[in-house]
Amino acid sequence: MQNSLTASIVGASGYSGAELLRILHRHPHVRIRKLFANTSSGKKVDEIHPWFGKTMDMVFEPYSAKAACSSDVVFLALPSGEAMHIVPELLDQGKRIVDLGGDFRLPDAMLYEQYYKHKHTAPSLLGRSVYGLPEWNREDIRKAPLVANPGCYPTGAILPLVPLLKEGAIDMDGLVISSLSGVSGAGRGNSQDLSFVEVNESAKAYKVGVHQHTPEIQTVLTALTGKRGRLTFVPHLIPITRGIYTTIVAPLNKSVSQEHVMGIYNKYYAEEPFIRVSSSLIPEIKNVNLTNFIDIGFRIHPDNDRLIVLSTIDNLVKGAAGQAVQNMNIMFGFRETEGLL
Amino acid sequence: MQNSLTASIVGASGYSGAELLRILHRHPHVRIRKLFANTSSGKKVDEIHPWFGKTMDMVFEPYSAKAACSSDVVFLALPSGEAMHIVPELLDQGKRIVDLGGDFRLPDAMLYEQYYKHKHTAPSLLGRSVYGLPEWNREDIRKAPLVANPGCYPTGAILPLVPLLKEGAIDMDGLVISSLSGVSGAGRGNSQDLSFVEVNESAKAYKVGVHQHTPEIQTVLTALTGKRGRLTFVPHLIPITRGIYTTIVAPLNKSVSQEHVMGIYNKYYAEEPFIRVSSSLIPEIKNVNLTNFIDIGFRIHPDNDRLIVLSTIDNLVKGAAGQAVQNMNIMFGFRETEGLL
Amino acid sequence: MQNSLTASIVGASGYSGAELLRILHRHPHVRIRKLFANTSSGKKVDEIHPWFGKTMDMVFEPYSAKAACSSDVVFLALPSGEAMHIVPELLDQGKRIVDLGGDFRLPDAMLYEQYYKHKHTAPSLLGRSVYGLPEWNREDIRKAPLVANPGCYPTGAILPLVPLLKEGAIDMDGLVISSLSGVSGAGRGNSQDLSFVEVNESAKAYKVGVHQHTPEIQTVLTALTGKRGRLTFVPHLIPITRGIYTTIVAPLNKSVSQEHVMGIYNKYYAEEPFIRVSSSLIPEIKNVNLTNFIDIGFRIHPDNDRLIVLSTIDNLVKGAAGQAVQNMNIMFGFRETEGLL
Amino acid sequence: MQNSLTASIVGASGYSGAELLRILHRHPHVRIRKLFANTSSGKKVDEIHPWFGKTMDMVFEPYSAKAACSSDVVFLALPSGEAMHIVPELLDQGKRIVDLGGDFRLPDAMLYEQYYKHKHTAPSLLGRSVYGLPEWNREDIRKAPLVANPGCYPTGAILPLVPLLKEGAIDMDGLVISSLSGVSGAGRGNSQDLSFVEVNESAKAYKVGVHQHTPEIQTVLTALTGKRGRLTFVPHLIPITRGIYTTIVAPLNKSVSQEHVMGIYNKYYAEEPFIRVSSSLIPEIKNVNLTNFIDIGFRIHPDNDRLIVLSTIDNLVKGAAGQAVQNMNIMFGFRETEGLL
Repeated sequence: MQNSLTASIVGASGYSGAELLRILHRHPHVRIRKLFANTSSGKKVDEIHPWFGKTMDMVFEPYSAKAACSSDVVFLALPSGEAMHIVPELLDQGKRIVDLGGDFRLPDAMLYEQYYKHKHTAPSLLGRSVYGLPEWNREDIRKAPLVANPGCYPTGAILPLVPLLKEGAIDMDGLVISSLSGVSGAGRGNSQDLSFVEVNESAKAYKVGVHQHTPEIQTVLTALTGKRGRLTFVPHLIPITRGIYTTIVAPLNKSVSQEHVMGIYNKYYAEEPFIRVSSSLIPEIKNVNLTNFIDIGFRIHPDNDRLIVLSTIDNLVKGAAGQAVQNMNIMFGFRETEGLL
Repeated sequence: MQNSLTASIVGASGYSGAELLRILHRHPHVRIRKLFANTSSGKKVDEIHPWFGKTMDMVFEPYSAKAACSSDVVFLALPSGEAMHIVPELLDQGKRIVDLGGDFRLPDAMLYEQYYKHKHTAPSLLGRSVYGLPEWNREDIRKAPLVANPGCYPTGAILPLVPLLKEGAIDMDGLVISSLSGVSGAGRGNSQDLSFVEVNESAKAYKVGVHQHTPEIQTVLTALTGKRGRLTFVPHLIPITRGIYTTIVAPLNKSVSQEHVMGIYNKYYAEEPFIRVSSSLIPEIKNVNLTNFIDIGFRIHPDNDRLIVLSTIDNLVKGAAGQAVQNMNIMFGFRETEGLL
Repeated sequence: MQNSLTASIVGASGYSGAELLRILHRHPHVRIRKLFANTSSGKKVDEIHPWFGKTMDMVFEPYSAKAACSSDVVFLALPSGEAMHIVPELLDQGKRIVDLGGDFRLPDAMLYEQYYKHKHTAPSLLGRSVYGLPEWNREDIRKAPLVANPGCYPTGAILPLVPLLKEGAIDMDGLVISSLSGVSGAGRGNSQDLSFVEVNESAKAYKVGVHQHTPEIQTVLTALTGKRGRLTFVPHLIPITRGIYTTIVAPLNKSVSQEHVMGIYNKYYAEEPFIRVSSSLIPEIKNVNLTNFIDIGFRIHPDNDRLIVLSTIDNLVKGAAGQAVQNMNIMFGFRETEGLL
Repeated sequence: MQNSLTASIVGASGYSGAELLRILHRHPHVRIRKLFANTSSGKKVDEIHPWFGKTMDMVFEPYSAKAACSSDVVFLALPSGEAMHIVPELLDQGKRIVDLGGDFRLPDAMLYEQYYKHKHTAPSLLGRSVYGLPEWNREDIRKAPLVANPGCYPTGAILPLVPLLKEGAIDMDGLVISSLSGVSGAGRGNSQDLSFVEVNESAKAYKVGVHQHTPEIQTVLTALTGKRGRLTFVPHLIPITRGIYTTIVAPLNKSVSQEHVMGIYNKYYAEEPFIRVSSSLIPEIKNVNLTNFIDIGFRIHPDNDRLIVLSTIDNLVKGAAGQAVQNMNIMFGFRETEGLL
């Protein structure tokens, strides 16, 4: 374990980048070295994120690999398709990377191109990245040069499902996952669809059946549990800034009780610092706001052999920047909760 | 057909009552006779609903059957368990009733008591009420003395499902219905759970597996289509005032195309004045705000033989007061859209 | 009085345009002839505004003066600086116009150019337009070829102030007007500043001291009351879709009572169909939502000789499209409330 | 300076109490000893505030002076009128107190009773409390047994005004203060007025001219600056959870420039750790969310000798719990920013 490290952020002007800044700035063992943001380069952090006024006086710079290499770890918070152009050189230079985007989460380039709709230019690296879900890949993350930080929806869906699948309580085939996301999940842009008037007092499903997180959920569940099956994922946008609500309806393989299900979760998650499971409470988004927790609740449907599992995360924390720092803590031998409680 | 009629509202100080007032006030063939609201009795309408200032100068009265009988039709907008005490006498007096609550929607008292958690005091009337879903029960509604106006969630779920079930495109067994509701659906109260701070920037599932609309959806689907099967219904609360989003994942019985599904909907709904189905657009709540429309969209899941069906209604209009007026129009021989477009 | 007329809308794809559509569509004496919207031309109304599905099947067209002249009245709902290029030709063709923008509200071109930051190309028409505030300019509106519909903030500020200034109860010098606006007031655009995440859970003042509605309020108050003086106007953006809250602190010229102030308002506004004044209630935005009303309330400050006057309007109705239709009703001899209650 | 201290909270189940918990829990020098909450006594913290799950396992207790005295400092987060019954005994026992309520902020009992509408039972203590505005009363706070933590609105109004009044730039007579508050400022209750449906998509002024913070602003401004004059304060409720926006229109005593005003603020506040003043930026509530900062901006009105000053705070942090901890830091000799950045 080292005593402290230096970190840089590529894409520091977006919402995930700002959240990384917020968390790393308070982390006792991290010094922020460089903030890269091409369109905002030359501007002070608090010109773009006034929230940081009087607490941080760094300046955004245009990205350069050389400058990035002056830090121990590089966080990439970029739109999909951009990290793949940056990662090879950084790896060559021996840098360790946490990529918050989707470029290195899927196992093969064909699947990537089918869902992300553009070519993958570094397919040989797909097999070398580690999927950064600490609760299941802790050992691999520890020594990974490149950690692919999970997507926000996948984090909310995979964590509640893995124990149930591993124990054979539920069937993967026929799973229905319906998720509600806050608008920050769509990134910082100026699309008219995301204007206040269009989003407020409304709700909508989107990318139904074709969302890029569908294959991520599917392949990771299979990789972690050995189970296969077809699932349905429907993402929705609701008028809140932060948070994801995940509602899963799962076919039960056998008759279970609330206590039985709680027992399964306790077996795997009782000691997990960022997983809170309750047999009585139903999760609410506000309870995880600005935290790295995932809250999990569940109910057995009275008459249809279905288990309903509910989870909440803050999409920018456990769904992005918080989990990225959790991964960094593991990679560099810090206490896993450092800077996150 | 008569030229005009008189209507009274019992429970006129709540949100559904106010919405009835708003719609009936503009209806060309209706004169509002009496407004009953026990806790607000003696107050002018615009003291409780200032929105109506300078447009309406009626006064709320304590309920009396005699006063109610001075009108041709009586709308009941009461908390569950109250209508059953009022309906028998009104029916005896030959009044026609539209009940916006849940007291007369289920076919038997046992099921009612299981979900509503109190005794049904007028079980003999359960068989005599007509379920007020105009698109499917138009003829029965025409002559019904007592119309049980559908629940908000059931309206959003049943209308998209019936054509698909009738045509055998989907299976009822294994249906998953996940709905998002605006807060006005919980009625006008002072529960701390519904305070702004508790609801804002959050979302939650509630009454998972035990919501009283579950047996309503189940029994009505079976009554209308002859199909049976177990379904799962999960209601959620989201921070908007009005609207319901319904996301249904249905097992497909056979391979279908978007055109095929659109064909089914066209067969049943092309001429329906308040149903809008699109093969391309995904419904959004704002598009039905303050209207009596239901918007329906759908997508075939690319690789898992599931059909995802999405619908939106305004819970206070098509999900309550608007549909009640649509029923009244049918009962009294007016044009079905009168006062609703 | 004629029995019915034809109307066209230029700029029908924006929020004010859609609101005009909503209102005119229900107006018993109006037939909509043409909808002009350059960037959406060729699209059906419900492709841009799905809310209108199954109620309207018109198509947006690119603007042409010739096509516009086929209707009796032309509504202009355009960004500032565009109407001035269209109006001269329409007036030459004898068309009557209601302009919802700011091009013809100010009395002289220099003032316009100072606040709107671009040249006025039709300064000779500035003296010929009538300021479309029905409650004060009814007679001039009746025969006006060109009505300049008031701005949203000015409507909320001027109506409560004129009676008090005319009666000498308050002084114009030292008036402080602080207004809160919903986001639809900024128009339909894709500015990042107006994205959901940036607006939600926040509030801000903007254009402090330099907002283009300041000279409008100032010049209209002087024109209507003969009083002069310096006033301060501070607009704010708050996270709601519709509505304007106006809080005015006015220096009292003499000691007054609530009854006295109420008496002044009754003298001028008791018979006004769209003005509701209360001596007891404090206005709330929700009470005027989707209506053409302005609600006015007031309080005498206990110890400082100030009168606090509060008003609310729906910025898209009384602050834009509703008032425009009210003006049209006057121009064409219809009942002033036609289509608006 | 001592190395660490123990703190108890009376009224720990409300919103200010929870915010104190959140801040103190992370404070490196504080150990929380007792949490008092009569109506929730016996419940674990995370039963009432699930946000704290897995981070805190304390239990709420019914208040007892003896138990409270086991800690070094006692925070009171109670509805007005309750602290006055608790404070005398705690002071007798030599405890140091930070009272977040209004019982000890005003200088005399008559003024208190006029605005708070109930009797003051400990008037002799009014002269002994110190008004806990660190930026102006730091020395007195250091040794105060009883600190009256400022009200949320007064914090937002007084901090921007004091430098301008002290330098004679503006006149106190004629000040107009218009403030917008998030709903958490009204406390955790179940009033129907504060339900989501009533607050959402609306805004309203309230307690116009009679709000209890008016005399607090007035007397503190005079105490700190020696200036007198009549001011007007109008509070509003807007649909956000946290934050206060304060818009002040002040009569300028002399011609000033932006630079001149900035110079005044720099003179007094340049070194203040929690005050951020900008000559160019207009404050927005989101920029201070969850921080102890106050942001201040200003504009000189072009033509009327008025200065418009704008400020934002998080009502639960700088407007309540954060400022209380800042006061505690001063009282006990910790770094003033400890636990607050």
